[in-house]
Amino acid sequence: MTAKFASESIERLMEEFAKLPGIGRKSAQRLALYVLKIPRAEAQRFASSIMDVKDRVGYCSVCGNVSESERCSICTDGRREKGVVCVVEQPSDIMAIEKTGEYRGLYHVLLGAISPLDGIGPDEIRIRELVKRVDEEKPVEVIVATNPTAQGETTAVYISQVLKHSQVKVTRIARGLPVGSDIEYCDQQTLSKAFEGRKEL
Amino acid sequence: MTAKFASESIERLMEEFAKLPGIGRKSAQRLALYVLKIPRAEAQRFASSIMDVKDRVGYCSVCGNVSESERCSICTDGRREKGVVCVVEQPSDIMAIEKTGEYRGLYHVLLGAISPLDGIGPDEIRIRELVKRVDEEKPVEVIVATNPTAQGETTAVYISQVLKHSQVKVTRIARGLPVGSDIEYCDQQTLSKAFEGRKEL
Repeated sequence: MTAKFASESIERLMEEFAKLPGIGRKSAQRLALYVLKIPRAEAQRFASSIMDVKDRVGYCSVCGNVSESERCSICTDGRREKGVVCVVEQPSDIMAIEKTGEYRGLYHVLLGAISPLDGIGPDEIRIRELVKRVDEEKPVEVIVATNPTAQGETTAVYISQVLKHSQVKVTRIARGLPVGSDIEYCDQQTLSKAFEGRKEL
Repeated sequence: MTAKFASESIERLMEEFAKLPGIGRKSAQRLALYVLKIPRAEAQRFASSIMDVKDRVGYCSVCGNVSESERCSICTDGRREKGVVCVVEQPSDIMAIEKTGEYRGLYHVLLGAISPLDGIGPDEIRIRELVKRVDEEKPVEVIVATNPTAQGETTAVYISQVLKHSQVKVTRIARGLPVGSDIEYCDQQTLSKAFEGRKEL
């Protein structure tokens, strides 16, 4: 028996919340009841901001980052280094990298990674756009910052191959021990990569 | 430096998600980007269901449960036992109890629990309504199913006192070992309650 709340509207909102990634039935219920308690104006802001994202946000025609205009704020920023392009899987990766404040080049978002098991080949992600862009813009370096997962590594290797002809320098971000972590609890693959990538002090 | 997405709409939706209980900055970002990916119609359903909850749902005038009409579906259900009223803190507790399928009586939602430290006294929750209801409806039993926390226990004791004059039988749900748990890891208070509440086999 699945019990129902005495309100269909709450049931429906629960279902909507439960569709979101990482939100289970319990959380969905908590969130729906929270919405019941907040002022109407606040709920209105929440609902409008959902539709604003659908109605105003698209992807940058150059790099694939999220953008509310044809070209994103990074691509149109004159102060960015034009000679370096950092390749990432998702727009959220850009945000993480921007937070470091270290990187000043441009980006290229693949919107995915090669994953044959999920039926995602090179043509399903924005690799063709990357090759075209490298041929046209001729950057000096392409930094491949896909995730250090099987899919991310496969994608990185594939990119280095398809860019061979263009003679751009293709680099891969370092894999190694996370800062603040403990060697004792580090997995073997990460530790191997950390040894492999060692540098002289 | 706090990095910004190349979209104000996404930033705003992130902020809205981050206001929800139990949703941190990271999750808010993930959810906002998820909304960006879903079809517009689905986002529309989500946004509308938020406003529906604000516009359609209120509280049952009898028991305080969430309801889209003046009286909730439990209060108006002729098959429920009218002689038993179960007192809970929140509408979500009703849902949990209904899921067991065992309880067939009515409910009374306090919409809170007595918590002097948070400035919540008996007048801030629906205790007056309970007393009035017991005097009018004269049930045979009031089951106090407030949480087994300091606030819930205080509330339970208070309710038993204010209902003394009405001669209704006031009971408290059992505190004891959760089914499937392990005595070894049980806290002392629960274990004491389990011994206190032991029954003959």
